[in-house]
Amino acid sequence: MVGAFGGVGTTITLGLAAMARGLADRTGLVTALPPFRDLPLPEPGDFVVGGHEIRSTTFAESAEEFRRTSGVFDPAWIAACRAELDAASARVRPGPRLGLSAVVSGLADWAEARAARTARQAVDAIATDLGAFIASESIDHLIVLNVGSTEPPFPLGDVHQHWKTLKPRLDDASQVLPSSSLYALAAIEGGHSHINFTPSLGGSMPAIHELAQATGALHAGKDGKTGETLMKTVLAPMFAHRNLKVSSWVGHNIFGNRDGLVLDDPTSKTSKVETKDRVITEILGYKPSSIVTIEYLPDMGDWKTAWDHIHFQGFLGTKMTLQFTWQGCDSLLAAPLAIDLARLTDLEKQRGGKGQMRHLACFFKSPEGVMENDFFKQFDRLIDHVAKPQRP
Amino acid sequence: MVGAFGGVGTTITLGLAAMARGLADRTGLVTALPPFRDLPLPEPGDFVVGGHEIRSTTFAESAEEFRRTSGVFDPAWIAACRAELDAASARVRPGPRLGLSAVVSGLADWAEARAARTARQAVDAIATDLGAFIASESIDHLIVLNVGSTEPPFPLGDVHQHWKTLKPRLDDASQVLPSSSLYALAAIEGGHSHINFTPSLGGSMPAIHELAQATGALHAGKDGKTGETLMKTVLAPMFAHRNLKVSSWVGHNIFGNRDGLVLDDPTSKTSKVETKDRVITEILGYKPSSIVTIEYLPDMGDWKTAWDHIHFQGFLGTKMTLQFTWQGCDSLLAAPLAIDLARLTDLEKQRGGKGQMRHLACFFKSPEGVMENDFFKQFDRLIDHVAKPQRP
Amino acid sequence: MVGAFGGVGTTITLGLAAMARGLADRTGLVTALPPFRDLPLPEPGDFVVGGHEIRSTTFAESAEEFRRTSGVFDPAWIAACRAELDAASARVRPGPRLGLSAVVSGLADWAEARAARTARQAVDAIATDLGAFIASESIDHLIVLNVGSTEPPFPLGDVHQHWKTLKPRLDDASQVLPSSSLYALAAIEGGHSHINFTPSLGGSMPAIHELAQATGALHAGKDGKTGETLMKTVLAPMFAHRNLKVSSWVGHNIFGNRDGLVLDDPTSKTSKVETKDRVITEILGYKPSSIVTIEYLPDMGDWKTAWDHIHFQGFLGTKMTLQFTWQGCDSLLAAPLAIDLARLTDLEKQRGGKGQMRHLACFFKSPEGVMENDFFKQFDRLIDHVAKPQRP
Amino acid sequence: MVGAFGGVGTTITLGLAAMARGLADRTGLVTALPPFRDLPLPEPGDFVVGGHEIRSTTFAESAEEFRRTSGVFDPAWIAACRAELDAASARVRPGPRLGLSAVVSGLADWAEARAARTARQAVDAIATDLGAFIASESIDHLIVLNVGSTEPPFPLGDVHQHWKTLKPRLDDASQVLPSSSLYALAAIEGGHSHINFTPSLGGSMPAIHELAQATGALHAGKDGKTGETLMKTVLAPMFAHRNLKVSSWVGHNIFGNRDGLVLDDPTSKTSKVETKDRVITEILGYKPSSIVTIEYLPDMGDWKTAWDHIHFQGFLGTKMTLQFTWQGCDSLLAAPLAIDLARLTDLEKQRGGKGQMRHLACFFKSPEGVMENDFFKQFDRLIDHVAKPQRP
Repeated sequence: MVGAFGGVGTTITLGLAAMARGLADRTGLVTALPPFRDLPLPEPGDFVVGGHEIRSTTFAESAEEFRRTSGVFDPAWIAACRAELDAASARVRPGPRLGLSAVVSGLADWAEARAARTARQAVDAIATDLGAFIASESIDHLIVLNVGSTEPPFPLGDVHQHWKTLKPRLDDASQVLPSSSLYALAAIEGGHSHINFTPSLGGSMPAIHELAQATGALHAGKDGKTGETLMKTVLAPMFAHRNLKVSSWVGHNIFGNRDGLVLDDPTSKTSKVETKDRVITEILGYKPSSIVTIEYLPDMGDWKTAWDHIHFQGFLGTKMTLQFTWQGCDSLLAAPLAIDLARLTDLEKQRGGKGQMRHLACFFKSPEGVMENDFFKQFDRLIDHVAKPQRP
Repeated sequence: MVGAFGGVGTTITLGLAAMARGLADRTGLVTALPPFRDLPLPEPGDFVVGGHEIRSTTFAESAEEFRRTSGVFDPAWIAACRAELDAASARVRPGPRLGLSAVVSGLADWAEARAARTARQAVDAIATDLGAFIASESIDHLIVLNVGSTEPPFPLGDVHQHWKTLKPRLDDASQVLPSSSLYALAAIEGGHSHINFTPSLGGSMPAIHELAQATGALHAGKDGKTGETLMKTVLAPMFAHRNLKVSSWVGHNIFGNRDGLVLDDPTSKTSKVETKDRVITEILGYKPSSIVTIEYLPDMGDWKTAWDHIHFQGFLGTKMTLQFTWQGCDSLLAAPLAIDLARLTDLEKQRGGKGQMRHLACFFKSPEGVMENDFFKQFDRLIDHVAKPQRP
Repeated sequence: MVGAFGGVGTTITLGLAAMARGLADRTGLVTALPPFRDLPLPEPGDFVVGGHEIRSTTFAESAEEFRRTSGVFDPAWIAACRAELDAASARVRPGPRLGLSAVVSGLADWAEARAARTARQAVDAIATDLGAFIASESIDHLIVLNVGSTEPPFPLGDVHQHWKTLKPRLDDASQVLPSSSLYALAAIEGGHSHINFTPSLGGSMPAIHELAQATGALHAGKDGKTGETLMKTVLAPMFAHRNLKVSSWVGHNIFGNRDGLVLDDPTSKTSKVETKDRVITEILGYKPSSIVTIEYLPDMGDWKTAWDHIHFQGFLGTKMTLQFTWQGCDSLLAAPLAIDLARLTDLEKQRGGKGQMRHLACFFKSPEGVMENDFFKQFDRLIDHVAKPQRP
Repeated sequence: MVGAFGGVGTTITLGLAAMARGLADRTGLVTALPPFRDLPLPEPGDFVVGGHEIRSTTFAESAEEFRRTSGVFDPAWIAACRAELDAASARVRPGPRLGLSAVVSGLADWAEARAARTARQAVDAIATDLGAFIASESIDHLIVLNVGSTEPPFPLGDVHQHWKTLKPRLDDASQVLPSSSLYALAAIEGGHSHINFTPSLGGSMPAIHELAQATGALHAGKDGKTGETLMKTVLAPMFAHRNLKVSSWVGHNIFGNRDGLVLDDPTSKTSKVETKDRVITEILGYKPSSIVTIEYLPDMGDWKTAWDHIHFQGFLGTKMTLQFTWQGCDSLLAAPLAIDLARLTDLEKQRGGKGQMRHLACFFKSPEGVMENDFFKQFDRLIDHVAKPQRP
């Protein structure tokens, strides 16, 4: 896990342990639904959790902070899973700081193991850690999952179009890739799986896709669809199917976790807002007036509250309104989806899959390689895919 | 139209005229969406509107009342379509009062043409009016559309199981059928099409279905899915597909049109509440705690406001909440769907269809003959059906 | 405390201990505001908590249950205050079951100390317990606080008009008084203070008020104004002062604590709904259409969610809407107000006060002896009262 | 009226006529409440409406546009009051463009009567129009009411501190005053009354206050308190009086009238946001985290929807939430208050009042010369003031 000690990473780690111990049930896991029941998916106890971080803390500390500020996690479960939390903490390594945004750099308080001056040095440092993890834990399938802070938008250029043009530039000292892409590259170059749960760039560029074809690495992204955007991809099809004309869609989001702190930086926020706004236009086929805000309010903790106001026109020009308020705990919504993605990626590996996993679109706000944004059509595609005993 | 001068009937009549004159566009009509564009559907100007009523008024008066109390309908359109409204008003006949609920009887102020003492007399009186309408207007396909007030639940017995047992009982003076079923029977016995847009009984019984098989009458029902229930059949699948456990679903509805006045009678309300509650359980596969209220507030006019509070449990037992407020104008949501149903029924007639039209499930809260409640699956079925050039 | 182990009683007990230990600050206590700072009010550590119950449990168990179901109370505070909780639990006595409603009787699982067959026997049994508490704990001012379950409305008759007519009837076996009034009587007959924080009858009858005049007992009630009704008494004056005409006010309440379970019984609910509805009419000076529901949903725990929809008419007949959603934790809102009432009652005692304390109206939904329902005017009255060094 | 053909100006003009004709009642007028009934206030028919504008249109056109886009105004009333609307339109003069913000300038399509190059020239041009209006209509009390578009914040300097320093600078070509202040100056220099219903600068500076002292002109401002801010000044005292700690207050506003278009310009928006934010801090006595947005969505018309999310902490650190949604029609809320202000200003004139009218604070978001922001305390002050037969 990239950004392991964050809210999502901590919830994944505690959640896997609590499920393995039979404390928690599987509510929230899509892969616990009937269509997935007979598939050879890895069980919670089969995962070995590790990762990279730039903040010096532990899963136990992070879980306790979460409980206190957000009122989540039964304290009895934290206590019962203490051994697993500590073991996982010991498997987290200090990550390189190259390519971090200014605001994330400001949070870094863990000394780097090896300072990297070029992308190549950073990728190699990460790869060395991944290799050591595989060796010491006898990992048979390594999945690198990005659950780190959101980065500002990173503009792609000609250099990112082909692996043969990108590869030599990794040795420059220039900022040719953001941090998230360095981790993606380390994974994919090594033939490991990579899942980008964040809106950051990660492996989303032709050059890295090309590399994945060559190494056979599985990959999927990006930006887990947890709350308000999930609602948008469910409700927008309803308006479309009823031929109700959406004249404006306003979405205001407030939340207070560390991701919010990072998003409070205007440049980081841009990537998130763009994604949230785009899906409506793509589903409706036209662009209604729209406003999207994401604001950081420390007192909200991990609780994301979204208020959406949808103004639509019905028959004979009649204006009507739908409003919704979503009060969800972000990390608790994200973590089971990330576990689902890991389980389904492993299934794909068992089936001999390679490259981009388009069938995982229903988990993402910006599903790579997929034009379909309607949640239910995306879900049907997943069901169809896993139901096939063999890949085509 | 049964209950022609009500909100839905008035909106249909004004709407068809306004579309035929090119004043109004087709927003709100499902059959105006791309998958329906090349089908031989009747155009707005092809319909000849008539009906039955028990209140003595006109479409023009009703439209004006609507405009004043609910702020809908451009006054310029009412004026421009005055000729069509008056012509349609002249085609509305006083309906028999037999089988009306007490509260609806209390609204009746139009003298009956022929007082019916038995169901058979009432059915024949209606059939006579239908025949006269067909003859005078040269109607080639008669569709009887129930947009009347909601009746109290009507318990079915053995007598309603077969046409041969029901038929002789029609001559009794006893209340063997409610008003809505008398109209359904008149239509179906005559081989005409019948659509029940209300939660009333109408033709929903084995005896009448059997009769429809014999006469070849097309029929579909019941209870148009306009607002809160539409939302329920869209959102419940989302929770199910994410394996989020809905612990309670509360839905409070307020509105102030004549339908609300009738529903304010507790016995009539029961039919509506049952339908609204049932769909969630059927989609989720378990029954969350639930509350549904429908309350009449005269000052709301035709504006139905629904507040829904959905309490759900996510990963690690975390409780979260979704609330929505739907502010829709009921008749303006219903009328285009009723027009869609009439257009699609005519298509079915052209294609040689007979009996129950299961492919219209997405328009109904309680789709007859269909177990599927997920709106999107219902919609896909409609699209598949109309896409086939021939019926199987 | 009557109904000591309930949510409010438990929160009071834990809260006093947590404040005395300096763990918790005084947020939520009105008497911690500047106008009260220099008054000789008792401090949290000055209170000795005891009471009556019919359920066999403890404050520690009840606090733990609360934490688990409603996510309130820092577990570290429960642990730190364990000694105070246990000591207080030991001071709670089993109460008589005479006069309990059927639904509350069904919750009773603690054997009565002395079965009472007449009101007099029950009052004397309670008085004996109160006397023993005063003696063993050296109490200098006993305040009986009713925080028990809501009773059904209890109709008053001629017998309740004068103490001389009520007194002899106490020896009958007939149900002359509900349970809440037996406790009120025991307190007031003994010259102790009595505060009714619930909508139950308690001491609200001329006969007991007369008795309080004679014994000099201080008393106040009834029904603590914690959430939705507080909002109503704040917002209704706003509409009145702007001459905006409220056409309808709808309030739907859902919650899941034990009080909700009791209110789920329709007869108990009536008292609560009446109070909530009345204040709006009294403030506005006319009665808008209104709906009030209170529904029990076990999954909500102590979290009361109220949705209010206020439809109002402005200038030139323009209809507008205000909606609010209140998500409050009922016991945590009630407990500090009950502590405020106890502190202010003690102040009144120090100042030589007797009988009805009308200046406490701002704490109650149905303030006894007071016609003013506007929260801010009630609050001003409290401030004026406490500012006077001498009573008039 | 400055900005006469805007939404507020149009509603005032139509409203006065509709009330004078007995079509409309006085709902929404504070001065129609009992405490004001016996005061010698001018009646609707006593007002002669005129004004300045920069857009070339009429009250009748503006009213019709409003009806169409926002569903307000009974068309029968517009027709019935056509004569008054046309007469009033004829009394509106093209205003000078000097000192307009760029975005407002962009809306100007009415040729100036006299192009002004200096503030003095503009003030004199306005004064000439005012004088002509008084003469032709035999006005005995001229009240200049600013209901024009919101200006960007205008920084005050030393020059604005005293009339003797400001006066000579009026002859410069430099932008020493914004447009709103030119109108204020013309009014106050002439000894006429001035009311600033907008957040623009107007007469809010020591130099003009000093001048008002000298000429005896009555004045009040600024920024009419119509909707969300009214709610804030009602609810914030509730939290304060209950000692509930507000940790964050988020307010998102959307609307679509011309004022919104102007506010969409970021510099204009700043003045409005500052005011809305400030009141909470001043009432609570501390600054919670806060967010205020005002966004322009053309499809909303004159309907302002505000969603406020208030996160507060109660007893024992328990976090709770209040949310409200206000759906108000801005001009219809503003117009009656502006009429109230005119009526009360006339009363003050009759009583011999001069200078700043602090007792009108309850009508304003930023009441000049008044520290009190609590709506109910402001209202009490108004009632006290008008109840006095003589000024002190």
